[in-house]
Amino acid sequence: MTTQSEQLATFAANLQFSDIPAHVIARCEDLLLDTLGSILAGSTARPVKTIDAFAKLQGPTTGKSQVLGNVRNTTALFASLVNAAAAHMVEQDDVHNGSVFHPAAVVFPPALAVAQEIGASGKELLTACVAGYEVGIRVGEFLGRSHYRIFHTTGTAGTIAAAVTVGRLLKLNPEQMLDAIGSAGTQAAGLWEFLRTAADSKQLHTAKAAANGLIAAYLAKDGFTGAKQILEGAQGMGAGMSTDADPRKLVDGLGTRWALPETSFKYHASCRHTHPAADALQVVMKDNNLSASDIASVVTHVHQGAIDVLGAVVKPETVHQSKFSMGTVLALIAIQNFAGLAEFDAALHDEQVGAFREKVTMELDEEVDTAYPNRWIGKVTVTTNDGRVFKGRVDEPKGDPSNTLSRPEIEDKVMRLGQYENAASTDTIKHLIDYVWDLQNKEVIEALV
Amino acid sequence: MTTQSEQLATFAANLQFSDIPAHVIARCEDLLLDTLGSILAGSTARPVKTIDAFAKLQGPTTGKSQVLGNVRNTTALFASLVNAAAAHMVEQDDVHNGSVFHPAAVVFPPALAVAQEIGASGKELLTACVAGYEVGIRVGEFLGRSHYRIFHTTGTAGTIAAAVTVGRLLKLNPEQMLDAIGSAGTQAAGLWEFLRTAADSKQLHTAKAAANGLIAAYLAKDGFTGAKQILEGAQGMGAGMSTDADPRKLVDGLGTRWALPETSFKYHASCRHTHPAADALQVVMKDNNLSASDIASVVTHVHQGAIDVLGAVVKPETVHQSKFSMGTVLALIAIQNFAGLAEFDAALHDEQVGAFREKVTMELDEEVDTAYPNRWIGKVTVTTNDGRVFKGRVDEPKGDPSNTLSRPEIEDKVMRLGQYENAASTDTIKHLIDYVWDLQNKEVIEALV
Repeated sequence: MTTQSEQLATFAANLQFSDIPAHVIARCEDLLLDTLGSILAGSTARPVKTIDAFAKLQGPTTGKSQVLGNVRNTTALFASLVNAAAAHMVEQDDVHNGSVFHPAAVVFPPALAVAQEIGASGKELLTACVAGYEVGIRVGEFLGRSHYRIFHTTGTAGTIAAAVTVGRLLKLNPEQMLDAIGSAGTQAAGLWEFLRTAADSKQLHTAKAAANGLIAAYLAKDGFTGAKQILEGAQGMGAGMSTDADPRKLVDGLGTRWALPETSFKYHASCRHTHPAADALQVVMKDNNLSASDIASVVTHVHQGAIDVLGAVVKPETVHQSKFSMGTVLALIAIQNFAGLAEFDAALHDEQVGAFREKVTMELDEEVDTAYPNRWIGKVTVTTNDGRVFKGRVDEPKGDPSNTLSRPEIEDKVMRLGQYENAASTDTIKHLIDYVWDLQNKEVIEALV
Repeated sequence: MTTQSEQLATFAANLQFSDIPAHVIARCEDLLLDTLGSILAGSTARPVKTIDAFAKLQGPTTGKSQVLGNVRNTTALFASLVNAAAAHMVEQDDVHNGSVFHPAAVVFPPALAVAQEIGASGKELLTACVAGYEVGIRVGEFLGRSHYRIFHTTGTAGTIAAAVTVGRLLKLNPEQMLDAIGSAGTQAAGLWEFLRTAADSKQLHTAKAAANGLIAAYLAKDGFTGAKQILEGAQGMGAGMSTDADPRKLVDGLGTRWALPETSFKYHASCRHTHPAADALQVVMKDNNLSASDIASVVTHVHQGAIDVLGAVVKPETVHQSKFSMGTVLALIAIQNFAGLAEFDAALHDEQVGAFREKVTMELDEEVDTAYPNRWIGKVTVTTNDGRVFKGRVDEPKGDPSNTLSRPEIEDKVMRLGQYENAASTDTIKHLIDYVWDLQNKEVIEALV
């Protein structure tokens, strides 16, 4: 009788590139490129710079792995640490709805760093990342809602995802992979308490999940043993950190259901609760050839959660707050047809944005509220200055699996993210785009920047 | 209204050498020396060597901080990691009964490494270690018995203890110290699941508690913020990792009750449940001038817990198992008057030890069982070959606060530990002893070995 942990370890250790459907590989490439943009955009932020300064102080200043922002080389451990800290900073990285887990931030940084360190190929890198996604998402689903109420799943399940990713690159056998999962799980940490005062812990969580997972995998390769059932055991993660952990979810459809393409991209640089209405407004304006100056009012028909989270923000006083202002988000869509990081930075004191914001209201909508959270429906009613009334609707917000981003849209997003705060040049970003689209042909992963 | 976390942070940040009673400082020196012995003894073990190999692969090969076994220099992060992995390996380091926490393993390694890195004085080192003990022990008491059932408190509370120790050395102000505690608590981890298959995680737990606490303190010094109530907050450690967490225990007698001298030394290199009877046998033999060959039988009068843990071991088949064999432990006491690491290694197939082991039995004793676990009473009945019967008794096992080790006994223990598996030369160990006894006079902590 194999345990769920053994099944996960065996799946991850034995996964081959040829086992993975082409659309899963393609989506993995999409997500990697998307994440490179997030890493660059986050690299200039204070918390990330602080972690980078610590890495410079305590880690090696040479190595084969690359810190992508403030470009320099170091060992895989420290490149993982800093890049993972950056990846989640601007909150533009991916999310898997069912597990409420952001896999990209903890999978791609250690994958790239280790691939550079050991000279893995593009196909090996992709295989390892798919393994990390498949296992990590299932661990998040296993830990459940009670876990997420206290723990930051991206920190906890993320440690396992990172260990599996690195473990696959290091070619761990199933027994070693089980050790790596054991050593990762016993390091898994991350509490939501920091939210109360908006402390910097989120960056520490992704940084440490990536680094700790890497440690677990390297130690396992060298014979260091770990718990055999750290997930579902009587003194494991489920027992200690959840009250509704369901071990069956650990192996749900393993090898047949691909969880990676269930992951959503984030398109607008704002709170997810604003996205459905923003998309619906975009549809109305495009279909009816409206400009911002044509619009007299926008009523957004939303779920209760949107009102709970966004309702308090009447006149945003910080850039961060403006990303939780439905009026500001819709103003950017109406005026600029885009709500990215740079647009929010410029919008805070913009008079035109402020005037449009006043035209936007939220109303609870029964259909939208009932469908949530399984479906995030967007509905708006737009009234023009000349009295016309238009209804707009999207059934799945931009970025979700059935309404995903095209490669040109991802390229555009990455170009914007990469240039945020002058993190990278357009040439550098173009090189990254070309590199990722050609990843399957790379015999050895080199420095990316 | 200051929170418990704030009170802890303020106490730790403001603690001065002159605030600390001389007997607490002296005991801190005792515990430091004791721990250096444990670090050397553990340094040659496979799991510690594996962590050391990882540190060499991923960390710098130069720095001001010293790895004590396999002597080399690196940065404070990696010296902490490796020395803390070694400190708990041979299970001869200290224990605080009330918190079921081993402070030494997670306090002294980062304290020494950071003191070497920044050139702190002996008094600064001692002050920082006392701060780490006082805070860490209270966090362990706060987390309570429900926490310890699933989590390895030395890993979890240990992360806070390490952060406070390093934070005090870095001269964090109270606000920064609170940030350090916040960043430490959100990294706190360590699950007992590994025990089921005797995996290597215990070494990972102490190594990572020390390293993660150090990271938290260095980041806080540089402005990285943490949760303000990571211990007692609604989404903090108590909420997520305990069902009986009592916030009042966080500040119990802070500044008046010194928790550090409540810590016990481990004297015999065996399961703690064997210690009371071993001590009682030693008393009987000394008082009555008996040798092993005089003895026909020993009945140990024990608590139920001793029978539960030790009862299964009839004929030990591994050195580790022999440390859970009451007969083997008492045989070493009777024959060699000492049950240390080297004695256990030699005893497994020794005929004389095997013969004496057969003479030892355990019997449940009501008085002993009732007193446990607050008091660990040792009682034996010894019958000699010529028919005499002697009763022996100790009310507190050797090493507990009221029956502590003298400095010569600590020196002797450290000399034995340090020479275990030829970890260090006698000259090196003598130097360590002299260094620690003169620690208060050191202007700058240098390389110890």
